[in-house]
Amino acid sequence: MADAPVNDAPFRLLSGVEFGEGVIVYSFTNLYGCRIGDRSRIGTFVEIQRGAVIGRDCKIQSHTFVCDGVTIGDEVFVGHGVMFINDRRPRATNEDGSLQTDADWTLLPTVVERRVSIGSGAVVMGGVRIGEGALIGAGAVVTRDVAPGETVAGVPARLLAPRR
Amino acid sequence: MADAPVNDAPFRLLSGVEFGEGVIVYSFTNLYGCRIGDRSRIGTFVEIQRGAVIGRDCKIQSHTFVCDGVTIGDEVFVGHGVMFINDRRPRATNEDGSLQTDADWTLLPTVVERRVSIGSGAVVMGGVRIGEGALIGAGAVVTRDVAPGETVAGVPARLLAPRR
Amino acid sequence: MADAPVNDAPFRLLSGVEFGEGVIVYSFTNLYGCRIGDRSRIGTFVEIQRGAVIGRDCKIQSHTFVCDGVTIGDEVFVGHGVMFINDRRPRATNEDGSLQTDADWTLLPTVVERRVSIGSGAVVMGGVRIGEGALIGAGAVVTRDVAPGETVAGVPARLLAPRR
Repeated sequence: MADAPVNDAPFRLLSGVEFGEGVIVYSFTNLYGCRIGDRSRIGTFVEIQRGAVIGRDCKIQSHTFVCDGVTIGDEVFVGHGVMFINDRRPRATNEDGSLQTDADWTLLPTVVERRVSIGSGAVVMGGVRIGEGALIGAGAVVTRDVAPGETVAGVPARLLAPRR
Repeated sequence: MADAPVNDAPFRLLSGVEFGEGVIVYSFTNLYGCRIGDRSRIGTFVEIQRGAVIGRDCKIQSHTFVCDGVTIGDEVFVGHGVMFINDRRPRATNEDGSLQTDADWTLLPTVVERRVSIGSGAVVMGGVRIGEGALIGAGAVVTRDVAPGETVAGVPARLLAPRR
Repeated sequence: MADAPVNDAPFRLLSGVEFGEGVIVYSFTNLYGCRIGDRSRIGTFVEIQRGAVIGRDCKIQSHTFVCDGVTIGDEVFVGHGVMFINDRRPRATNEDGSLQTDADWTLLPTVVERRVSIGSGAVVMGGVRIGEGALIGAGAVVTRDVAPGETVAGVPARLLAPRR
């Protein structure tokens, strides 16, 4: 593992990240407590939270948010402005009005398998599995599992093409 | 009222903001001329414009844009990448080609009531009222009022579940 | 042409940009190798890539991504969180697992004609032409050409109103 990205760039916040070899991280990024595999590239305006794992040879494009509980396999393309979600019914506060903490909700883990491609502007709900080589259309809202090789699109995302 | 957030964080632009007590503002944020209630937390890559009001105990998540004319109640959750809108037909220029100024369009005020939850990637058109405790699905485009307690989703957003 | 924006603002990355006269560029921006016409204004958290062209008197709002191959005409309004796309099937790697480079995919050029208005949260696929004065609804996913003056909305975007 490496201690840092191989490139230099201003305006980055990198805290407690496990970097693979040859990782590139662009400017205006906030990465903490996550793991980034060899040769992956992280675009501008990206936040990757503690607990997220990015595989090798991935591209995570600009304006994307990867939350805790998301595991992304090798050779995955995540487009621009993609939002991952890890809870079913997010709330700011509990019924008694107290601020929610990590103890007050259940993390829904999401798995994105090898060679998946997620189009720009897509939203991926918590708890889904996106199978190997699947294609998620731009702007799709993925609410359930996507089988390997399938192409889905729309809100909510529906099957456009079966396994190629 | 406090003069500043309680936390420190690099890369913030905070100008003329009225902060409540215990507010947390993360990095890469641009807040100006707005009001943020006690204990609310503002995520990375967030812009909140002059004239916007955020209540107490809110979470405004990363990559979200809150424009002038938006009033957010207490205990509201605004997900990641949520875009508020405050004009009906935005244009860069007037019919005569001159640049539009504040005098050239009508602000449509938006009200988000107490304990609403807005899913990631949602877009909220100007002029709507989202009633207390309503849930807006991830990726929804809210084009009209949402009654208290309702759940809506889709593009445009439609009723998924009546008042709980 | 000017060497720089007329305004000053912290946290900007401007590299090899051809600026027109009177351009304003806000903070937290990453512009490189692109061309920005006279008096246009570029919002926060915006990235504009090498090869993109922005006309005169445009507004490019916050959180928007403009990629290589996009040509935007004069007096165009691009809302907040708009994502442009320039390839049909983005992949992180080639079939042999090697990282994709510019030689491994075909750029699909996009043209946005004069006085178009693109709503917040819209996604514009590569290879489309949006005709003069057209309106793209907020949250729309534009998958094919839009004729001049048309209004489209939805996922995928469909005609709401013919030429006005």
